[in-house]
Amino acid sequence: MTSKIWGGRFKDKTSKLMESINVSINFDKRLASQDIIGSIAHCNMLVRQEIIPKNVGKTIIQGLKTIDDEISKGVFKFRPELEDIHMNIEQRLKELIGESAGHLHTARSRNDQVATDFKIWIRDTIDRIESKVKRLQQIFVQKSEQHTETIMPGFTHLQTAQPITLAQHFLAYNEMFSRDRGRLQDTRKRLNECPLGSGALSGTSFNIDRSYTSKKLGFDKPTSNSLDSVSDRDFALEFLSTCSIIAIHLSRISEEIVLWSSSQFNFITLPDAFSTGSSMMPQKRNPDAAELIRSKSGSIIGNLNQLLIVMKALPMAYSKDMQEDKIPVFETADTIEICLDVIAEMLNEIIINEKNMLESSKRNFSVATDLADFLVKEKNIPFRESHHIVGNIIKLAENKEVDLDNLPLKDIKNIDERLDLEVLEALNVKTSVNSKISYGGTSSKSVNLQIKEAKKKLL
Amino acid sequence: MTSKIWGGRFKDKTSKLMESINVSINFDKRLASQDIIGSIAHCNMLVRQEIIPKNVGKTIIQGLKTIDDEISKGVFKFRPELEDIHMNIEQRLKELIGESAGHLHTARSRNDQVATDFKIWIRDTIDRIESKVKRLQQIFVQKSEQHTETIMPGFTHLQTAQPITLAQHFLAYNEMFSRDRGRLQDTRKRLNECPLGSGALSGTSFNIDRSYTSKKLGFDKPTSNSLDSVSDRDFALEFLSTCSIIAIHLSRISEEIVLWSSSQFNFITLPDAFSTGSSMMPQKRNPDAAELIRSKSGSIIGNLNQLLIVMKALPMAYSKDMQEDKIPVFETADTIEICLDVIAEMLNEIIINEKNMLESSKRNFSVATDLADFLVKEKNIPFRESHHIVGNIIKLAENKEVDLDNLPLKDIKNIDERLDLEVLEALNVKTSVNSKISYGGTSSKSVNLQIKEAKKKLL
Amino acid sequence: MTSKIWGGRFKDKTSKLMESINVSINFDKRLASQDIIGSIAHCNMLVRQEIIPKNVGKTIIQGLKTIDDEISKGVFKFRPELEDIHMNIEQRLKELIGESAGHLHTARSRNDQVATDFKIWIRDTIDRIESKVKRLQQIFVQKSEQHTETIMPGFTHLQTAQPITLAQHFLAYNEMFSRDRGRLQDTRKRLNECPLGSGALSGTSFNIDRSYTSKKLGFDKPTSNSLDSVSDRDFALEFLSTCSIIAIHLSRISEEIVLWSSSQFNFITLPDAFSTGSSMMPQKRNPDAAELIRSKSGSIIGNLNQLLIVMKALPMAYSKDMQEDKIPVFETADTIEICLDVIAEMLNEIIINEKNMLESSKRNFSVATDLADFLVKEKNIPFRESHHIVGNIIKLAENKEVDLDNLPLKDIKNIDERLDLEVLEALNVKTSVNSKISYGGTSSKSVNLQIKEAKKKLL
Amino acid sequence: MTSKIWGGRFKDKTSKLMESINVSINFDKRLASQDIIGSIAHCNMLVRQEIIPKNVGKTIIQGLKTIDDEISKGVFKFRPELEDIHMNIEQRLKELIGESAGHLHTARSRNDQVATDFKIWIRDTIDRIESKVKRLQQIFVQKSEQHTETIMPGFTHLQTAQPITLAQHFLAYNEMFSRDRGRLQDTRKRLNECPLGSGALSGTSFNIDRSYTSKKLGFDKPTSNSLDSVSDRDFALEFLSTCSIIAIHLSRISEEIVLWSSSQFNFITLPDAFSTGSSMMPQKRNPDAAELIRSKSGSIIGNLNQLLIVMKALPMAYSKDMQEDKIPVFETADTIEICLDVIAEMLNEIIINEKNMLESSKRNFSVATDLADFLVKEKNIPFRESHHIVGNIIKLAENKEVDLDNLPLKDIKNIDERLDLEVLEALNVKTSVNSKISYGGTSSKSVNLQIKEAKKKLL
Repeated sequence: MTSKIWGGRFKDKTSKLMESINVSINFDKRLASQDIIGSIAHCNMLVRQEIIPKNVGKTIIQGLKTIDDEISKGVFKFRPELEDIHMNIEQRLKELIGESAGHLHTARSRNDQVATDFKIWIRDTIDRIESKVKRLQQIFVQKSEQHTETIMPGFTHLQTAQPITLAQHFLAYNEMFSRDRGRLQDTRKRLNECPLGSGALSGTSFNIDRSYTSKKLGFDKPTSNSLDSVSDRDFALEFLSTCSIIAIHLSRISEEIVLWSSSQFNFITLPDAFSTGSSMMPQKRNPDAAELIRSKSGSIIGNLNQLLIVMKALPMAYSKDMQEDKIPVFETADTIEICLDVIAEMLNEIIINEKNMLESSKRNFSVATDLADFLVKEKNIPFRESHHIVGNIIKLAENKEVDLDNLPLKDIKNIDERLDLEVLEALNVKTSVNSKISYGGTSSKSVNLQIKEAKKKLL
Repeated sequence: MTSKIWGGRFKDKTSKLMESINVSINFDKRLASQDIIGSIAHCNMLVRQEIIPKNVGKTIIQGLKTIDDEISKGVFKFRPELEDIHMNIEQRLKELIGESAGHLHTARSRNDQVATDFKIWIRDTIDRIESKVKRLQQIFVQKSEQHTETIMPGFTHLQTAQPITLAQHFLAYNEMFSRDRGRLQDTRKRLNECPLGSGALSGTSFNIDRSYTSKKLGFDKPTSNSLDSVSDRDFALEFLSTCSIIAIHLSRISEEIVLWSSSQFNFITLPDAFSTGSSMMPQKRNPDAAELIRSKSGSIIGNLNQLLIVMKALPMAYSKDMQEDKIPVFETADTIEICLDVIAEMLNEIIINEKNMLESSKRNFSVATDLADFLVKEKNIPFRESHHIVGNIIKLAENKEVDLDNLPLKDIKNIDERLDLEVLEALNVKTSVNSKISYGGTSSKSVNLQIKEAKKKLL
Repeated sequence: MTSKIWGGRFKDKTSKLMESINVSINFDKRLASQDIIGSIAHCNMLVRQEIIPKNVGKTIIQGLKTIDDEISKGVFKFRPELEDIHMNIEQRLKELIGESAGHLHTARSRNDQVATDFKIWIRDTIDRIESKVKRLQQIFVQKSEQHTETIMPGFTHLQTAQPITLAQHFLAYNEMFSRDRGRLQDTRKRLNECPLGSGALSGTSFNIDRSYTSKKLGFDKPTSNSLDSVSDRDFALEFLSTCSIIAIHLSRISEEIVLWSSSQFNFITLPDAFSTGSSMMPQKRNPDAAELIRSKSGSIIGNLNQLLIVMKALPMAYSKDMQEDKIPVFETADTIEICLDVIAEMLNEIIINEKNMLESSKRNFSVATDLADFLVKEKNIPFRESHHIVGNIIKLAENKEVDLDNLPLKDIKNIDERLDLEVLEALNVKTSVNSKISYGGTSSKSVNLQIKEAKKKLL
Repeated sequence: MTSKIWGGRFKDKTSKLMESINVSINFDKRLASQDIIGSIAHCNMLVRQEIIPKNVGKTIIQGLKTIDDEISKGVFKFRPELEDIHMNIEQRLKELIGESAGHLHTARSRNDQVATDFKIWIRDTIDRIESKVKRLQQIFVQKSEQHTETIMPGFTHLQTAQPITLAQHFLAYNEMFSRDRGRLQDTRKRLNECPLGSGALSGTSFNIDRSYTSKKLGFDKPTSNSLDSVSDRDFALEFLSTCSIIAIHLSRISEEIVLWSSSQFNFITLPDAFSTGSSMMPQKRNPDAAELIRSKSGSIIGNLNQLLIVMKALPMAYSKDMQEDKIPVFETADTIEICLDVIAEMLNEIIINEKNMLESSKRNFSVATDLADFLVKEKNIPFRESHHIVGNIIKLAENKEVDLDNLPLKDIKNIDERLDLEVLEALNVKTSVNSKISYGGTSSKSVNLQIKEAKKKLL
């Protein structure tokens, strides 16, 4: 006969193989602390509603606190044959306090219990991640303040496009991570309804008080429908989606760190502390951390994809498939947290090679747009036409293999009579950058305004 | 020499193959109306700021309106060699009004233009989808009102678990779609900042008024950073994530329609209008629409995955890869919309086989939990113990191949002395259902409260 | 100063955070045995080619064998600060035999070393998985032999379509897994080229003999291009693809186990050993194992997706991103193996409820196609017309709520004059099944031939 | 009443909405030619087996040929209300030849018909893709022949690692695409079993000859199991997997084209024919084609993911979900084909900036490994020690900001007494490259051997 807690009706033991695929204690033990908090709230409510005797309630809570202590101290023995964290704790409670332990599961099922535990875990994790995202934003803003005058090439298509300030580049990341925080907050708000008291799927006939447990556990309200409560994993999916977009942002800054630390770009130098060497090539200094963060987007998107696939076409209510929600969420949380930590510390220590950035910003006729704009403003030429004229000037300069300011006036006049030397004097990366005074633009002026606004939002 | 609008500096024509991979007009023509609205706002602003002459502005706007008209009437000729919708419109404008058209692109780049157009398109689409989700919720709530007393088996693991009301089942879907609406609203709110005026990546030196265009185009404010503005596709990713979760919900209800219309379940009958036949088997009546909606989750998750992959590790700012944002978004929007329409109409016409549901709800000892709860309440047995006792009763009934209420009292007493016949009288699906009066539970009382709350939220 | 093996040029220590994201020893220690085998082959080759002295080679190999021994006995101390399994082993070798250990890495890089180790690991795993797939096929074939006469409803769209034999159903799975084995074999064959000797990326100037190591390590030949050798992860991608298709097949049989063990279908009964109970509902007997296997497809597809994302757009040659190949492959292999084990044992113990299957096969006018075919054969009516006639007969029977054989002859004649009672006598699930004698069909005859062929292929 | 071909038993018309989600003619019309070929083979077989009269067969085949002709000429009218290509053709046949058309569907179902059509389509497509992959390999090999002496930096982690030949780089891609061809061939071989004659799911009672149709349609044999035949989409999944790996390879070469055409790398210049300009920045020359090919990996992996999700947990046999196999396969095939065409033509026209490559190959102490190897060979220093010594030399050179050959002998001796000037004379990128004579290495000698072998395989 089985010794399972749920095994009253079972004659035969669970197959060993079945046990090994079914067991979740190796990963869901991470829910231990949430499970105990949830059980204490549930127990207090049962007492308050006079569903179980006061003294029984007291004994149970003392038992749970002992278990919590055992777990913190690392002396709790997790037993795979007890399947999951909930049964491990319940069984230990029985060892500690005897048959009274059997009262705890009154008006509760593992289905509402695990949904509650998992929501609390994700909520705590969102708070932790959000504060790390915020710290990263602060670093970007702080770095921006140091580089409102540092000029670098702005790229589109990885081709030099226009000169920009490094501050502008960093502030773009501040915006991305600002949206990420918004998504984290929305996800948190939406998940914050308490499933406890939904029973296995249909509620319970005991006179429970769901508002009490909900409040005690920090939720905004109890969930509205018991069936939905135990079969809903939207909160996990939304958390994974939100993390996937964070991972995309992290992959983009990482890609830039890899590019910029190549000897071809040489915009930054990574400190030894964030480089690794090669087992064969003694000179190597590899940007491993950036590469790893870049690649971690794969694991996080894979996890999102996994849970979407798991949830696809599951009939209601709870199905065991849903147990596969834990690993992708735990892995994703751990990965996002370490990536945020590493990128923050790495950014703090990166050495900016300002000279190379500036030099690079001058290449590739980066001020061509300024020239076209100049013709519009000073010569009243429609933009499309001025764009075409400048295109022809550049074709000429390329053919002659000279920079714009070395083109003979005669050749320029050949292209368009209205052009004169004054035209080319406009061309300078610093002038270009500081002319971009539109709201959100790259000039020091616009950038300083952005910094001011960003700091206010980060208070 | 190339005839491209951007082709001033180019000597050679674009390769035919290059053109065929590069062209986007076949799909981005869906942005036509948004593009024209955006151009009109931009043009008005240019006039207002005295960047272009008033009369030029007027001519441009008249031209744009003519084009809008041509497109609505289906007489506009989209030309693949002009690449995209933006160039198609600009070129047509030039044909209509001559060189003045060249003024329109002052202080603007395709990069900020397309980001603006695409955001407006997604915003409009979100509004449309949200109203369809709302209608679907209304149907679920309305169906619930009709079925507060209809009893069906509640399942977990697709095994009969406890009897529930059909209303409770429908209301679970109302909850899911309610969260979906929340996500749509959050996505909309977050995207609603206007990128127009960010130029190619760095802003512009023209004295533009971004607040004006932002307001005219219905945005909450202009975006804060020009680089981010042109390289951000978070709004598309978040839209696809939100739609993926909707698709999961749609796949779950579809799975249930497929299951329930099987002859083994026979809980519902699909009307002819939503069934199809077989080319070979004359008797078949297939739930094709439900199967298709179930499978569409694959396409939508695939689209989300696609755009995440596209965006992974792109350095800033705009890269051509981002053009691959349109198809997944357009396809997803179309798919979600038709699925919402079909499921709504299908739900409205499904025939509920109440008798079969009720019959089925009695099977598989569905009231076993009630019995255990009864022992707790009446006999003061701890729940774990009562669960075990009931397990043994069921093992006995199974061995004897009888229902619970046909078990001899003697045998019951053998299991536990405290049991008597009164115990088994508690067992009845109707009693069971109506005992679940906890908040969010399945009793008619709880369900009626849910309906009341749901209707208030749907006003 | 760093103590890293590669750290000659480094002044500063690696950041703790950097170490924690960079470390792979916690998962790549699974490559220990492959790493040692590879090192022994490499060392023997170095001696044979007189690149290192014979006695040094002997000492190294003795050291490596000691390490292998320490690892098997579980006494080897894996040290995270040494990054990965390769450095852990090399460092331990140095402790054991001193500076001679430094000769082992002659003409080798971690890049070609890890590619070699990983290929051997996957090759071994493929062999193990293939034999488990084969065992599963054997079970399906054996079960088929027992059920060549067991009649069940064949479904399309989950609607009863035509009666089939259970053997036919099981043999369909035999075909799926047969293709899976083919894919495993192809994957194995294609990966079986040895990267060792490719160095970091460009080969080596030492006079090595790659054919020797390739042969010793069981490869068909050395890889052709050193750059490709260290930047190729096709073999991992193909392995994950192959496993994803296996996972799809496993999800399909699992879905059927879940459906068939519902009380609505009741085609099978799961033994206690493969069921679990509920913490709240004492009667429950849940098909957890089948649900878990169904859901594991999510994790495996997620893993495939992950590695595809990781590899996307990586420039050559090796990038650190590729370290993210291990976890998805290890996880997938473990998952596929346990799923294959569990499904095999579960199938062996499932109880088939033949009576219910037979009963169910008669419902829903399952022999309608036979009637249509009969009209074609006996009455020379074109199939399309006969399909239509039978459709009308069924509509009539449905309206009258009777089975086909209870329809009055008069009513039948009203539909088509050519019909007579003989027509309906053709209708019988057993006759129907046994008429399907086409190659691959469901008749006992066709099924027996399939079994014969399958057994020959499984020898 | 419905006018559907399958509609005998249906009273009500199909809902318009249902029709619009159900219709597939807009995409499956691509199967028209395969459908007609399949029907002709089926019809010939029916005549040969005396299942339908000879003259009926002749009329049907003439009708089918007329339809084929109408389709090629573009005059065939595809009608959405007829659902799919199969019904469109059958209905047109009826218009052309009358009731005899009704004989064609004898012993056939749309289920086996569509599986057959789709397999033929994929098989043809594989052949076309394979020949394009082969052409691409030929280009890489041909380019390699031109660049066996062109020296460039070899990268790992995008850091300069060792000098290599450009030929070696190109040949790495030849290897990748060679494996792709192997996968295409394996996929083709495995799919090449003919489902025709499997009926709806159970075979047929007509005396058909499946070997005949299989042979006529170019298959190796008929499929073994009728149920599997109609519910199998492995061939589509395997095709998509194979294409996903091709897409990864295409994304890698595209990434390199983007990197190499940046002004920081400047290793290549893209011809005008494969560049595009900017609407705002007159100087831009963007590598759009490479960026698009890079991003297309997203769409292809998305498609693979989609079909895996669709197929997950589908019970047997055919479900309508499977209709969602067409679009991902069609899209993927089109995308892979155009990407292969564009990359081939682009590679043919790319201008290699050999001087910049050579210059770049000298940077970043790229010959440090050679120095370490030299110490091993000439000074009998164990590799690990020599690696450490060279690391120290580089640290010194970096501190002094000089190249290795400008280090004073005294300083070198300070690092290790055994070093002398001869040591540094070994340092030269050309010498380095040509020393890598190991099989598969980067020396001209090794590269020439690779080219010889590659050409033999490409014959």
